[in-house]
Amino acid sequence: MRLAELSERSGVSTATIKYYLREELLPPGRRITATQAEYDEEHLRRLRLVRALIQIGRVPVSTAREVVAAVEDDSRDQLSRLGTAVEALPHGPEPDERDPATDLARRTATELLERVGWRFGLTIAGRAGAFRTLVAAIAALHRLGYPCDVSDLLPYAHSAAGLAVSDLDLVEEYGTPTERVEAAVALTVLYEPVLLSLRRLAEAEESNKRFGDGP
Amino acid sequence: MRLAELSERSGVSTATIKYYLREELLPPGRRITATQAEYDEEHLRRLRLVRALIQIGRVPVSTAREVVAAVEDDSRDQLSRLGTAVEALPHGPEPDERDPATDLARRTATELLERVGWRFGLTIAGRAGAFRTLVAAIAALHRLGYPCDVSDLLPYAHSAAGLAVSDLDLVEEYGTPTERVEAAVALTVLYEPVLLSLRRLAEAEESNKRFGDGP
Repeated sequence: MRLAELSERSGVSTATIKYYLREELLPPGRRITATQAEYDEEHLRRLRLVRALIQIGRVPVSTAREVVAAVEDDSRDQLSRLGTAVEALPHGPEPDERDPATDLARRTATELLERVGWRFGLTIAGRAGAFRTLVAAIAALHRLGYPCDVSDLLPYAHSAAGLAVSDLDLVEEYGTPTERVEAAVALTVLYEPVLLSLRRLAEAEESNKRFGDGP
Repeated sequence: MRLAELSERSGVSTATIKYYLREELLPPGRRITATQAEYDEEHLRRLRLVRALIQIGRVPVSTAREVVAAVEDDSRDQLSRLGTAVEALPHGPEPDERDPATDLARRTATELLERVGWRFGLTIAGRAGAFRTLVAAIAALHRLGYPCDVSDLLPYAHSAAGLAVSDLDLVEEYGTPTERVEAAVALTVLYEPVLLSLRRLAEAEESNKRFGDGP
């Protein structure tokens, strides 16, 4: 398809598509004349991922480029492409190593992963941004005196494990390794606001049940 | 206790505490001389909440002031104070009413709440920021062609319902209505990075199980 059709089908303006092409967020089209190029379904899919990252995930263009490069790197298996792509996504605050709460939080986080049997998680803990965010979040809870023992955190880990099964079920519906890696990255980003907003609605529901004056 | 002790016990500098007092994020201490005031356990608790909001939740000072005002308003019952406080917290993007995907997303979100039986959620849907964020997130999934049917979203709603039970169990351990409202707001904010980081770790675990080369 031509640029105009790619724009029509993706809902992304031709100017924005040209910008993404210049920034190497999209692979170049197949040249058919000096001024025209042909695009295919792969461009459409890639454009959806880039939109998910930039518009919803609010990921900077340079980060999106790293994510896309990892997704595209078909010299590597899908697990390692996915790992690199997710690692390039923005994550939360880094732990403060000068704070004594950080050591304690790291022990709590490690014990939590052991309790839920995440053996792969334990092997990547030293280099995973998500593990560092978890440590920083537990340290903040600890420093502020809010509950953050392994027993308080376990329901969260169990929920996350359940959600990962649904997420990967959705991912496995995609046909090729590249499509699965793209979908896994996009769903990681796009379902975060779904999860946080549903948690707030569920808390309102449960608060009403416990503290409300009746139905 | 004096300002120095409040600073010592909270780990917040005296300069920052004075700033919070000026910004009305903390109630004034009880004057004992022209230049000295006395603070109590309530100040210490309030300071923890303000730190949670500003440092971890990255909430602007003006928003933190609204949240604190709602928490403090003991002319109202705890459910309505909690609702106002959580509503004042920052939430995700607003739905784009010009986008046809938004209408469809609103129907999907409403059906989801019906399916999980959140009757209170349905009554507040029209004014809850969390519901609008949910609609915007589903519309983005829809627009980009990623799975977002009620059946895809249900596992998320069920997980959120389970987490709300654990959250409110923690909240109910606090003694007074004001303490419970404070804890509910703080835990809403402080557990968001816990949940998102555990989800990413769980996805890594599940991906390794399905796509990895073995243990």
